[in-house]
Amino acid sequence: MKKIYVGLIGFGTVGAGVVKLLRNNDHLLEERLGARLVLKKIVDLDITTPRDVSVEKDMLTQDVGEVLNDPEISIVIELMGGYEPAKSFILKAMHNKKHVVTANKALLATCGDEIFKTAEEEGVDIGFEASVGGAIPVIKTLKESLIADRIESIFGIMNGTSNYILTKMTDEGNNFTDVLKEAQDMGYAEADPTFDIDGIDTAHKLAITLSLSYGGRVKLDDVYMEGISGIDQKDIGFAGDLGYKIKLLAIAIRRGGAIEARIHPTMIPFDHLLASVNGNFNAFHITCDAADSIFLYGQGSGMIPSASAVMGDLVDISRNMLKGITRRVSSRFRREGAAEDIKLMSMEDIVTNYYFRFSAVDHPGVLSRISGILGKNDISLASVIQKGRKHTGAVPIVVTTHESQEKNVRKALKEIDRLDIVREKTILIRIEDDRLR
Amino acid sequence: MKKIYVGLIGFGTVGAGVVKLLRNNDHLLEERLGARLVLKKIVDLDITTPRDVSVEKDMLTQDVGEVLNDPEISIVIELMGGYEPAKSFILKAMHNKKHVVTANKALLATCGDEIFKTAEEEGVDIGFEASVGGAIPVIKTLKESLIADRIESIFGIMNGTSNYILTKMTDEGNNFTDVLKEAQDMGYAEADPTFDIDGIDTAHKLAITLSLSYGGRVKLDDVYMEGISGIDQKDIGFAGDLGYKIKLLAIAIRRGGAIEARIHPTMIPFDHLLASVNGNFNAFHITCDAADSIFLYGQGSGMIPSASAVMGDLVDISRNMLKGITRRVSSRFRREGAAEDIKLMSMEDIVTNYYFRFSAVDHPGVLSRISGILGKNDISLASVIQKGRKHTGAVPIVVTTHESQEKNVRKALKEIDRLDIVREKTILIRIEDDRLR
Repeated sequence: MKKIYVGLIGFGTVGAGVVKLLRNNDHLLEERLGARLVLKKIVDLDITTPRDVSVEKDMLTQDVGEVLNDPEISIVIELMGGYEPAKSFILKAMHNKKHVVTANKALLATCGDEIFKTAEEEGVDIGFEASVGGAIPVIKTLKESLIADRIESIFGIMNGTSNYILTKMTDEGNNFTDVLKEAQDMGYAEADPTFDIDGIDTAHKLAITLSLSYGGRVKLDDVYMEGISGIDQKDIGFAGDLGYKIKLLAIAIRRGGAIEARIHPTMIPFDHLLASVNGNFNAFHITCDAADSIFLYGQGSGMIPSASAVMGDLVDISRNMLKGITRRVSSRFRREGAAEDIKLMSMEDIVTNYYFRFSAVDHPGVLSRISGILGKNDISLASVIQKGRKHTGAVPIVVTTHESQEKNVRKALKEIDRLDIVREKTILIRIEDDRLR
Repeated sequence: MKKIYVGLIGFGTVGAGVVKLLRNNDHLLEERLGARLVLKKIVDLDITTPRDVSVEKDMLTQDVGEVLNDPEISIVIELMGGYEPAKSFILKAMHNKKHVVTANKALLATCGDEIFKTAEEEGVDIGFEASVGGAIPVIKTLKESLIADRIESIFGIMNGTSNYILTKMTDEGNNFTDVLKEAQDMGYAEADPTFDIDGIDTAHKLAITLSLSYGGRVKLDDVYMEGISGIDQKDIGFAGDLGYKIKLLAIAIRRGGAIEARIHPTMIPFDHLLASVNGNFNAFHITCDAADSIFLYGQGSGMIPSASAVMGDLVDISRNMLKGITRRVSSRFRREGAAEDIKLMSMEDIVTNYYFRFSAVDHPGVLSRISGILGKNDISLASVIQKGRKHTGAVPIVVTTHESQEKNVRKALKEIDRLDIVREKTILIRIEDDRLR
């Protein structure tokens, strides 16, 4: 039976998962592929700490050259993460005519163009299914199944940690700080959780998804990004009253020649499939001109689920090798060749529905002054909740709007927050409703 | 630009959808594929009735030979449906070294082995994504993304018509006959709805899915099948009281060396993703040893969604052609070669939870006699609802059970239905709860 030799760079959680899967399911893989995948070397700086899987001592090395320069190794799996030296290793592997499988979303979101171009020039394959949505086959679905479709929109829950925190806050009523602490204690959140809770990780994944969907480069700085640290139990409560759940959504919507790309906490109808995505699961709701609505859900991270996606790529590349071909499918959603920048809309120009929570003194005439300013700025009200009249202190006034323009909303809130009757900065959460149907 | 010539057999709804997509998205397809897909001939017995898309007159023919014998045509799309002459046309196309794309689930479920074998022998590709789950990329996910996974279970809503009827019955409280009539009037159900409502269409799709998941042949007669025509509003109501929705599920569960394969109305927790699949949508909840839970949802049928899946196959095959290869991925979930029969478990041996609705006279001691017989047969009760005491006539006694064996259940119900205190045949609906988590 033909053997295909593989080298692994990065023996962390997912790396150990890949080693485990290659071992446990080796017979099944041979039967399905008709060839044997042989892991030859594992590179990591730490080659002494025991992992969740045991490997022969001489398989481990700290010298990346033992993988990058071994002519027998034809596929390199990069699972070390981060920008450098991961990037140099990937480029070197490609220059040495090795195919690459990676889960490195941060790197692909920032340097994807250079990496994809190098793969094209060297005529090697690159697989990155595990970089977005873990075990969910969203990359393959976009690149292959929806090949004849124009992607109209993508609404995704792409970060498990944020979704875990929001789920706990919603189900158990605890505040953000406590739930984050608990998630950190349980290993669901990093000691420095910034990447996850501020939406940066989600932005990386959205950038990759956008690149595939619209066949171009994405400037990460142009993606609007707002995290979940400002979410308050009060707003989760009001969302419930209004029939919504709050989720950190990555949103991409095609608007003629430009694309709306934004990441922020979003109120969505509680009976929508995305509202049922709980804990650290991920999901993608994709609408397109032919296939209509597609919803994909699964484990967005984790040792074995991510390894499953890596294995899918490994087999895909192996199948090419067995047929003596490469680059059967372009790395991007258009054929080989220079990519152009995708035109992203300015956040000021987007149009959506809004939830505002004003903190105002409890006076007759307050609502009239606030709604006057909203009206003046072309913002029309869909509903108003005014609860718990108090004779002293501020009361919440909750307003939802019909479709309004972000520019007008910002202008109106600036004016409202300067009013003497307003006690705290107004809370703004965007609502996606009809467009999700 | 290289041209790939395509012939279409069957100019019905999906056929017209394919023609439409090929036209509307031709630039996009060329850009993504780097080749032009040219539809050369359309075969149908009816070449005069106007379709939803207009084609040049000389593109239409009643003579299938104009497609099957045209050396320029390299891919044949079969969308006529049914067993014959569809089967002969597909085999003839393959013998003439043409690749085939089909949505014909009935044919693949019954003659798949012969068709797949012919494709292997002739060295041509066959795509059939549209045969199961319409636009949902379930076939590709099973054959490619989950290639390193052992499939543990599949719970699917695979028939849009049944799901539409059950959704309407649940939401609007109307009975089966009325909703079916309405669905027929609206074109959502066929004049002869047997295939859809009796579970036959679902069985075809489950057989194809099983074949892919476990790499063998499935004897359709061994798949247990029960349709939705016996579902009563009373049971939908009790299901709601118990926190369940009723769905027609196709179920496959791996039990050691054998597979449980069954289709029947099933009570599932109302907060499970599958319970949110409404109207004529389809969905698949797949669990596997590495990827964990994967949930795929979308349009299971319809002109343009099904055409989207056909196009995905067309491009897949075209990408092979452009690289000068065929059969990169086996038609089945194992490499080329003879398939074996998949061992399906006898329905008598399955173990699950049950819902029973007994119609008994309203007497003290009735429950004791019924539960006595259940206990004697190793069936332990999880809950009992006894509502609406009447002094005359029968009252419903609703019982749910812990895990019990079907054989014991059948024996117990036979004995209970013979009791003088029981007035009607007991209603049995299976429950899937913990295993769906």
